[in-house]
Amino acid sequence: MGFSIHSKLKDDTFNLGSFQLCEVLLMNDSRFPWIILVPKIPDLRDFHEIPSQHRDVLFQEIERASEAIQKHQRVDKMNVAALGNQVPQLHIHVIGRLKTDEAWPNPVWGHGTPIPYDITSKSNVIQSFKRELAIAER
Amino acid sequence: MGFSIHSKLKDDTFNLGSFQLCEVLLMNDSRFPWIILVPKIPDLRDFHEIPSQHRDVLFQEIERASEAIQKHQRVDKMNVAALGNQVPQLHIHVIGRLKTDEAWPNPVWGHGTPIPYDITSKSNVIQSFKRELAIAER
Repeated sequence: MGFSIHSKLKDDTFNLGSFQLCEVLLMNDSRFPWIILVPKIPDLRDFHEIPSQHRDVLFQEIERASEAIQKHQRVDKMNVAALGNQVPQLHIHVIGRLKTDEAWPNPVWGHGTPIPYDITSKSNVIQSFKRELAIAER
Repeated sequence: MGFSIHSKLKDDTFNLGSFQLCEVLLMNDSRFPWIILVPKIPDLRDFHEIPSQHRDVLFQEIERASEAIQKHQRVDKMNVAALGNQVPQLHIHVIGRLKTDEAWPNPVWGHGTPIPYDITSKSNVIQSFKRELAIAER
């Protein structure tokens, strides 16, 4: 089977574009600056299953996402996680956390109810993240 | 400042030994097979701050911890995460998850109350993990 993004990930996010290894998604939850990286390799589930020749690039792309979030907004901590209990396809969360955010100091998953971006802020946040991630408009 | 393990991590875990890059800790919570890796580099906070020359080794050690958990017990999913909202020192959780565990499909952090290992199971689980991690007795 070829690579495609799991339907639940598609439903919950906006596609920001594509890095060398990963598709780059923005979680549609305005409470947190929250990027999801999905390696474009079929049938991966767990973090350590990333083939060794792709690990450097994955690390660089996690760094690129972390730095984009830090440019977007001053955050207190980055949370980086590959969980996959709900969506088994390997995907890596990169989330900027503030000591004043509503979930702090707990993890964001399962906390409260997502607040989707409204139509104006959606367009702004997508443009801003594409710029900070250095992803060209398609 | 030199490297030392944060006191809260020490309090919550048993030390299983040392890999090339990371100290290897076992969370004292018998509900989940839960290893914590702490890179022995002072002053790291976020995942992407790992210097590039250490990233391959970190990946290998995450893989070694994941495989040790899989040898220890058949699990359905690995959760790998660097959060650090409670303890800012960089540490990487490697947790084996079962669809029947009490937190599934939610993350384990903040879920319910830890159940410490009793004295017999503590000794057994430490020996078993040291063997599976190929860490020599000290």
